[in-house]
Amino acid sequence: MRRAIELAKRGVEAGDGGPFGCVVVRDGAILGEGWNRVVASNDPTAHGEINAIRAACAAEGTFSLAGADIFTTGEPCPMCLAAIHWARIDRIVYAFTHADAAAIGFDDSAIMEQLRLPAEQRATPSLAAPPELRIAALEIARAWFARPDRVQY
Amino acid sequence: MRRAIELAKRGVEAGDGGPFGCVVVRDGAILGEGWNRVVASNDPTAHGEINAIRAACAAEGTFSLAGADIFTTGEPCPMCLAAIHWARIDRIVYAFTHADAAAIGFDDSAIMEQLRLPAEQRATPSLAAPPELRIAALEIARAWFARPDRVQY
Repeated sequence: MRRAIELAKRGVEAGDGGPFGCVVVRDGAILGEGWNRVVASNDPTAHGEINAIRAACAAEGTFSLAGADIFTTGEPCPMCLAAIHWARIDRIVYAFTHADAAAIGFDDSAIMEQLRLPAEQRATPSLAAPPELRIAALEIARAWFARPDRVQY
Repeated sequence: MRRAIELAKRGVEAGDGGPFGCVVVRDGAILGEGWNRVVASNDPTAHGEINAIRAACAAEGTFSLAGADIFTTGEPCPMCLAAIHWARIDRIVYAFTHADAAAIGFDDSAIMEQLRLPAEQRATPSLAAPPELRIAALEIARAWFARPDRVQY
């Protein structure tokens, strides 16, 4: 966690983005590091956790970080929580909480509240394409499932 | 959507990952495209939507895609939904639904169910670091908020 805090500090000093640093660790070794670079990289997905997961996966040559823990300076947002799930990470350790962040003016709880609503009640409209496009897209999904060499991620 | 389906088809044929293609559109013009490359790039975050958002933001030189719509072959997972929120995208259009995907064997509803639980009830343990690390991390967050040149993302 001290390393994650150092990365957050460096990122803030550089003006890279929010105050979030992150390391992915397995068996006492750092597999990957990241910090928030949303502003510096013009990438809204460049949160510390996402960057650390990407770095760890690149270093390990796999999309699975099973057996690893993620240390992050702030409790992860829903995007990062879901990414942690997709990466099969075992445990999350955070320094400050969502409530801490909200108290100093950085409140991302609206995203979680939105996700908890049914799609049709969310602020961002979610619309179904015409049926013939649904059928065409499903055909590709079925083709993928039928592939004998399909890699399940 | 036809372009998103084409990207999904190409991705599946190349063995890049799941059957998901995506385009970000504003005022009738495609700003960015993506398809699932989790397997090809060993990156669990490389969903079609994330890749399309990253491409669109890189092309536009901004972390905000306000005014844009996202067309995706499959209803977005929670990671992508939250990324769509962070990117300030206006509307989502999808071809097949979560239920369609689940019916043919690709069920990601567990992630949403997990997110809807309080952190302490989730399958992935989420642990608070010792208080002195919380305080150290919060100090950096406060420093960020105090910066006069802070860019809010």
